[in-house]
Amino acid sequence: MAVYTHVDDRTLKSFLGRYGVGKPVLFKGIAEGVENSNYLLETDQQRLILTLYEKRANPEDLPYFLNMMEHLADAGLPSPRPIRDNEGTALQHLMDRPSCLIEFVPGVSVDVPDEEHCASLGTMLANMHRAFESFTEVRANDLSLSGWQKLAATTSEQAEEVQPGLQREITTEIEFLTDHWPTDLPVGTVHADLFPDNVLFTDHDITGLIDFYFGCTDMFAYDLAVCINAWCFDEKHRFVPEKAKRLVEMYDAARPMSGAEVKALPILCRGAAMRFLLTRLYDWLNPVEGAVVRPKDPLDYLARLKFHQKIKDAAAYVV
Amino acid sequence: MAVYTHVDDRTLKSFLGRYGVGKPVLFKGIAEGVENSNYLLETDQQRLILTLYEKRANPEDLPYFLNMMEHLADAGLPSPRPIRDNEGTALQHLMDRPSCLIEFVPGVSVDVPDEEHCASLGTMLANMHRAFESFTEVRANDLSLSGWQKLAATTSEQAEEVQPGLQREITTEIEFLTDHWPTDLPVGTVHADLFPDNVLFTDHDITGLIDFYFGCTDMFAYDLAVCINAWCFDEKHRFVPEKAKRLVEMYDAARPMSGAEVKALPILCRGAAMRFLLTRLYDWLNPVEGAVVRPKDPLDYLARLKFHQKIKDAAAYVV
Repeated sequence: MAVYTHVDDRTLKSFLGRYGVGKPVLFKGIAEGVENSNYLLETDQQRLILTLYEKRANPEDLPYFLNMMEHLADAGLPSPRPIRDNEGTALQHLMDRPSCLIEFVPGVSVDVPDEEHCASLGTMLANMHRAFESFTEVRANDLSLSGWQKLAATTSEQAEEVQPGLQREITTEIEFLTDHWPTDLPVGTVHADLFPDNVLFTDHDITGLIDFYFGCTDMFAYDLAVCINAWCFDEKHRFVPEKAKRLVEMYDAARPMSGAEVKALPILCRGAAMRFLLTRLYDWLNPVEGAVVRPKDPLDYLARLKFHQKIKDAAAYVV
Repeated sequence: MAVYTHVDDRTLKSFLGRYGVGKPVLFKGIAEGVENSNYLLETDQQRLILTLYEKRANPEDLPYFLNMMEHLADAGLPSPRPIRDNEGTALQHLMDRPSCLIEFVPGVSVDVPDEEHCASLGTMLANMHRAFESFTEVRANDLSLSGWQKLAATTSEQAEEVQPGLQREITTEIEFLTDHWPTDLPVGTVHADLFPDNVLFTDHDITGLIDFYFGCTDMFAYDLAVCINAWCFDEKHRFVPEKAKRLVEMYDAARPMSGAEVKALPILCRGAAMRFLLTRLYDWLNPVEGAVVRPKDPLDYLARLKFHQKIKDAAAYVV
């Protein structure tokens, strides 16, 4: 975590008084996420996560994220359920921060997913999108095209320090994306950040989907493109076709994709690579003081972008 | 934690192969301690802590600390037991660091202990000292008199930046401590850092004693003096006689103190205050880059030192 808010035992006790969740027997800050303070809390009745939302979270968006999570939990998907207090309120204030007590979901994230992990992900992603069809709230994706343009402008002066020529590569690609970004694909609620560290497994079964704090309304196939980028490259940033094949195949089996969606995969993958290239570049150039989590190398996503630029068509992802 | 070593899921799996502890269902880095990386690990059979010892830990001392913990666990005290692998080895190497899988102990540490917490601590501290009477290993306390002299020399130039006059106060006090430090009190194995964050409670019962990494051979009554400093002052660093009374009274009931030990309490308390004043001053002047835990204010212990300097005799702690 970047910021860490200490919650003392008395404050916790008084906070838990709002709920019928039992007495705390374990309460430990966990090193998870760069945006918030998270505590693992176990009572004599259940296991929970206490999240305190730090500066980077926009408090106005929090009800949307919590409602997303509750909607999925109601649909039987393994999303942690926000816990409502005795008066029915989920979003609280604690230590002068918005905060929420959230159900704990078991499982361990996988650092290097194999093909079967990707297959499980494909099915789960499709089921999540289907479950979101009845979720009616809307939130624009501020990390789509116009967000990339802004980030590119902010980072342009320093991009050359990271790699000569980087600024021009970003500018050229954003021009291309601006001209070709699809506008007619099926849209709904998406996770938009479903990286391996946000998916918990027990063996090859997904037991938890977490970190919905980039959730928004965007093209379903864009969410799949994020996953292709995040799950289907090896440690040297080389594309692993078998993983993408299983991911897309299982996704399509649970939520059949339209021809237009399949055809758009290459440009959606370029856009997704650009999104993570730019946010990583920004974080790289603006490191948070005192952060435990080291900024990730933006160039990992330049390598992916270059792969997506070179492929002939969507068949590359499904062969 | 100051340093954080990431253990990926494959490395963990292969590491756990050495043990018969079951399959991991939860594995989370926890924000605990400034010296080491700690993970909470839950398998389908039990709950454990995985500790990776970072740079500041002297690898040669680790077997001593682990043996201390095992000795207490064998004696039935709530110290986490180091887990031995299938070949009987507790101390391992993981991610190029000494490491150990350790039993999990439940409970929550108390930020502001009340009198009954202090009473429980007194009994537990005495029981721990008695249990250590049969522990034969020896480790000199490198944070006693000669250690303070060294730390005072290292920090002397910059001490004035923290508070004008601080250097002279330290020098004068160390001269006094050097002249009067007791040498004839009962000696044995002590924790030497039994602060509230190292004691886990369920209600007022102690369910865990942790962080033995300052453990050493020193006067038993010095360990009590550390606890008086750490547990018996309020948030404004004012002495709370009721807390000290209960602590000392319950300690003495479980391990009767000699007259010489009681009489030495004031100087032992001055020494203990000096120890934490100096290490905090050092950490304050030499912050660890990227540390989550902010250095603690050394002047908290100057305030305690001044209290101990002014009291008439040991009666102040027990009235």
